[in-house]
Amino acid sequence: MGTNTDELNNKYSRGNLLYEGKAKKIFNLKNRNDLVWVEYKDSLTAFNAQKRGSFLGKGALNRNLTALIYKYLGLKQIKHHLIASIESESLICHRVKIIPLEVVVRNRLAGSTAKKFKLNEGAPLKKPLVEFFYKSDELEDPFVSDDQALMLQIVETQEQLELIKAKALEVNKHLRDMFAAVGIELIDFKIEYGKNSQGELILADEITPDCCRLWDFKTGEKLDKDRFRRDLGNVEEKYLEVWNRLKDRWEKESI
Amino acid sequence: MGTNTDELNNKYSRGNLLYEGKAKKIFNLKNRNDLVWVEYKDSLTAFNAQKRGSFLGKGALNRNLTALIYKYLGLKQIKHHLIASIESESLICHRVKIIPLEVVVRNRLAGSTAKKFKLNEGAPLKKPLVEFFYKSDELEDPFVSDDQALMLQIVETQEQLELIKAKALEVNKHLRDMFAAVGIELIDFKIEYGKNSQGELILADEITPDCCRLWDFKTGEKLDKDRFRRDLGNVEEKYLEVWNRLKDRWEKESI
Repeated sequence: MGTNTDELNNKYSRGNLLYEGKAKKIFNLKNRNDLVWVEYKDSLTAFNAQKRGSFLGKGALNRNLTALIYKYLGLKQIKHHLIASIESESLICHRVKIIPLEVVVRNRLAGSTAKKFKLNEGAPLKKPLVEFFYKSDELEDPFVSDDQALMLQIVETQEQLELIKAKALEVNKHLRDMFAAVGIELIDFKIEYGKNSQGELILADEITPDCCRLWDFKTGEKLDKDRFRRDLGNVEEKYLEVWNRLKDRWEKESI
Repeated sequence: MGTNTDELNNKYSRGNLLYEGKAKKIFNLKNRNDLVWVEYKDSLTAFNAQKRGSFLGKGALNRNLTALIYKYLGLKQIKHHLIASIESESLICHRVKIIPLEVVVRNRLAGSTAKKFKLNEGAPLKKPLVEFFYKSDELEDPFVSDDQALMLQIVETQEQLELIKAKALEVNKHLRDMFAAVGIELIDFKIEYGKNSQGELILADEITPDCCRLWDFKTGEKLDKDRFRRDLGNVEEKYLEVWNRLKDRWEKESI
């Protein structure tokens, strides 16, 4: 990752838009079929895009956070899709076939699951809980059981599902450490997996305060998208704080 | 089960009401701590009791259906809680500690799961699908994954959950045969399990058109509670038809 940005900008040439999601655009590369160009947008959405917002620089911030976190995870032998950071808001990544499954790992109950069971926000868990949601805008990302994920052929086999669970729990262990070292408790997070050209399952998509719950260990203050969802204010400041804490502690170590 | 009703009525003496649910009342027995008296009510409810109805004789009909089906399953070596039929609307059953889990087995998709995934009512499945719902009026019986059922300590171990699944699939096999022999396709059903005093998991609660989807093989006509839920009319007639078909084919064989 030592290559400087100008060299990278020459090496990777952005092609056509392949896909535009709520928070990212994905482009072809003109000269590389095995890679994609992922641009992080400044937009913020919640409740299946019913609520919308944005702040200037959010794309760059989330790009930086994802890149730093993926580099850290890479050092921990977690296979992921990131190749290089480029320009200020984009990443070059392996092209993968995304498994349409939001894989949620919870260390404490919060959000939809706490609500569903009328348990306190922040209720402790004896061990981390993995949940699956079927990525489908039309269906509003319904929660699915393992058997439903198999029935819907979201994954091919029970073994693949177990592998995803085991991988997600491994990621959780490292992310907890990474955040704990900067005084942040990782309450839960959502990740996605993709299959690379060798058919291998690798970590893909982003890891940012948009898809994690991050609470300050001392004050309990929320440092994540719940600030936007629940109108708590200071969204930009708290995202920046996460970045600053992680960068100061990990940037040198993980590059 | 050859004892006549008068003898049984003398043998079992009804005690205090222990519990009243939407469709049944459960009483103590005065002289037997290991048994309960289950009285089937004439009421019909749907959508977590938001919709209410009843018809005269429904309690007796569902009592008879459950008794006949349990006797059939007993002959197939399925362990269940039924001991004897008594009076016209009641059963004497082993006292069990009910596991608060609605165990749903689907042979085709219908109802809430078809709706959740926007799939056609009656969509075929490659293999039967088992689903769990957490029995809780307060929470409106939410759908739970295996891991959530464990997290909530609804069951004690993964092995117990797997055992419940395997048992439910075994019940499905026999029920499909039993209904198929009278021209009825078993689309799905809900059962419950209880733990007896030896800690063994046994089939408990009812098996009736209130908690099964039953479609006529030839006409596709619904012969179950969807007639009530969806205001299709002829609820009583169709429940009676299920009883008459099953009784004519199986009553002699299974007593």
